[in-house]
Amino acid sequence: MPITIQRLTASLDQMAQYGATLNGGVTRLALTDEDKRARDLLGAWMEDARLAVRIDDAGNMIGRREGSTDAPPLLIGSHLDTVPQGGRFDGALGVLTGLEVIRALNDEGATTRLPIELINWTGEEGARFQPPLLGSTTALGFRDIATADAVTDRDGVRFGDELERIGYRGDAANRPADATAYLELHIEQGPVLEEMNLPVGAVLGIIGQIWHAVTIRGRAGHAGATPMPIRHDALATAAELITGVRELALRAEEYAVATVGHIRVEPDAMNVIPALAELSVDIRAASNADLDRIESGLHRLGREIGQRHGVLVDISDHGEAASMPFDDDVIRAITTAIAGQGIPVHAMWSGPGHDAHPAAQRWPTGMIFVRSRDGLSHAEAEYSSPGDIEIGARTLLRVVRDLAG
Amino acid sequence: MPITIQRLTASLDQMAQYGATLNGGVTRLALTDEDKRARDLLGAWMEDARLAVRIDDAGNMIGRREGSTDAPPLLIGSHLDTVPQGGRFDGALGVLTGLEVIRALNDEGATTRLPIELINWTGEEGARFQPPLLGSTTALGFRDIATADAVTDRDGVRFGDELERIGYRGDAANRPADATAYLELHIEQGPVLEEMNLPVGAVLGIIGQIWHAVTIRGRAGHAGATPMPIRHDALATAAELITGVRELALRAEEYAVATVGHIRVEPDAMNVIPALAELSVDIRAASNADLDRIESGLHRLGREIGQRHGVLVDISDHGEAASMPFDDDVIRAITTAIAGQGIPVHAMWSGPGHDAHPAAQRWPTGMIFVRSRDGLSHAEAEYSSPGDIEIGARTLLRVVRDLAG
Repeated sequence: MPITIQRLTASLDQMAQYGATLNGGVTRLALTDEDKRARDLLGAWMEDARLAVRIDDAGNMIGRREGSTDAPPLLIGSHLDTVPQGGRFDGALGVLTGLEVIRALNDEGATTRLPIELINWTGEEGARFQPPLLGSTTALGFRDIATADAVTDRDGVRFGDELERIGYRGDAANRPADATAYLELHIEQGPVLEEMNLPVGAVLGIIGQIWHAVTIRGRAGHAGATPMPIRHDALATAAELITGVRELALRAEEYAVATVGHIRVEPDAMNVIPALAELSVDIRAASNADLDRIESGLHRLGREIGQRHGVLVDISDHGEAASMPFDDDVIRAITTAIAGQGIPVHAMWSGPGHDAHPAAQRWPTGMIFVRSRDGLSHAEAEYSSPGDIEIGARTLLRVVRDLAG
Repeated sequence: MPITIQRLTASLDQMAQYGATLNGGVTRLALTDEDKRARDLLGAWMEDARLAVRIDDAGNMIGRREGSTDAPPLLIGSHLDTVPQGGRFDGALGVLTGLEVIRALNDEGATTRLPIELINWTGEEGARFQPPLLGSTTALGFRDIATADAVTDRDGVRFGDELERIGYRGDAANRPADATAYLELHIEQGPVLEEMNLPVGAVLGIIGQIWHAVTIRGRAGHAGATPMPIRHDALATAAELITGVRELALRAEEYAVATVGHIRVEPDAMNVIPALAELSVDIRAASNADLDRIESGLHRLGREIGQRHGVLVDISDHGEAASMPFDDDVIRAITTAIAGQGIPVHAMWSGPGHDAHPAAQRWPTGMIFVRSRDGLSHAEAEYSSPGDIEIGARTLLRVVRDLAG
């Protein structure tokens, strides 16, 4: 078989040394010294693989393998940056599997009709420079470079200055241009493939999401001296809202999830009725109709439950992204590649965001998910097995051959 | 009228200077220098009122006014210690209203059949030395003095050493002995009298309580990548438990309350399903049957809801006190005294604990509640109006005349 899994896992191991943590994870925030060393290594590997390497003004690295025509290229992308105490696979797996596919084509001396470009996007995680997807969204024209340059990290250091400092400020002319399609392989970051006992899945798109900050203002009172009917309990209100929004997600027609991950009450004492509750509500849905339904349901619940408890419920949206379905033809190429290996095809929505989200707004796009042990990601214990990675890489190679001709 | 409200409020103002906070409250923890100065002032006032002052081995101060017989005395008690950033009324109002009643009897040259003893109990709040009610429960024989002496505050300072240091170690022979009845006037610490537009209320007893620490262990997961049906969400479980225990209290036959005042989740991030939730559950009920019913309901809910979510729910009791009804005859004397002033009688249970709780286990006991503005207590803004205080003092005087003859 053309994929050499030992070469791919050796590359993953070597890359994981930059920013390696004591517990086997990786801390490699965007544009740090660790990120620079990871980029330098990738650049050297790209050149070894005879790719023409270029850097754009947002620091995105693009390695190009020419095709037999100068048709718009087939793009393969992901990212090398991580969250703090992140894993070895989130992002790096997609970049290095793309590199392995190119190495395999080189091994065979294959010439494709389309040029192929391998991309390492800058700052996907948003862990250092907010928002996430900063490199891809800037290069794809959703933000001008001056705005991106002015973004500062927690210490007030500018994105633009860090790009210059590590020597990865390129030219706007080097941005990825017209493409025939965009492909991204990524770890699933969820437990579904593991539950289904499948090594890979075909991604239908990235679900839409709306993040809310909910503040409930009730009235404090002595836990013993305040009869139930005259309470204005902020946490009792929050509890009904949490249950209600969960039921809204369970009743959705397509894949949808609602999560309250953060909660805080004041005064937070055992014998005092909470006067204030703050919570996050993260709503995601494959269909924008479900997203709208859950969103308006949340606001309705806030009004109804708030009124019943005599408390003020303030729900503010602080971020949203519409659902982004992927391209039918690219999805078909991926499902065909999976089925061609005798593996049952599971088509699934991506809950997390990816650079494939802005990419899908410009080009026909698809993604391949590789099983994550325990559904873990953004964790040092993140793990995908060599066997699953090999199937993922073979799937990507089949799709590349199919689409690049 | 025999009660001189100006004298009583002047005494309250003067007492509030010991431990006065910038915001008009009081921080006067048990056996501190502030508490010593407050005790010295009370002792001087007791002597001015011709009371025979004695101190027992737990530092309780007792001022005795002789009666025409040597029958067991009528006791009037409360406490001068406060919580940190507490108010001017919680505790001090009961002691100083008792003093005003004795001053009023002196003004009239009245002789009662029973001796009257005014008590300042040591360390009611438990804010410095745990548990609360340390002075009363020790003097009443629920704990031996060596155990009380060995209790340490947060800095490791011993109760017994502090008693000696401030000069308030007395003799076990001075403890309050047999009594005809025990009376305590206190601010309500809740909003009921205010809601009913009443200055005072008659207390039926102190409700029983059970405190629980609940720990729910689920499983973390990406908020986008984990479908609802396979989640093990610790906070979603907690939310249903919070709603369920609230409904149990609402369905109780007599006065009952259930409060979740504290909650904490891990990892507490917007986009991660909570793996752990910790909460307090404070259950109180007038009848022990209701208390048992809510208690067993909580355990049943924990099992049912936990099973449904596939999470572990651990409920541990970490403290309980049975309901303590007061004496029918003393309650009748109080309701008669209230009605005798043309004020509608509201009989109510006390949610908070008081020294009247251990007292009621020894002697016929009753309490008078005075309206608290906004139901506040343990707060610098705690307030009861001179008008309400005057009615409270008149009520206490009427009860004293009735019971002491």
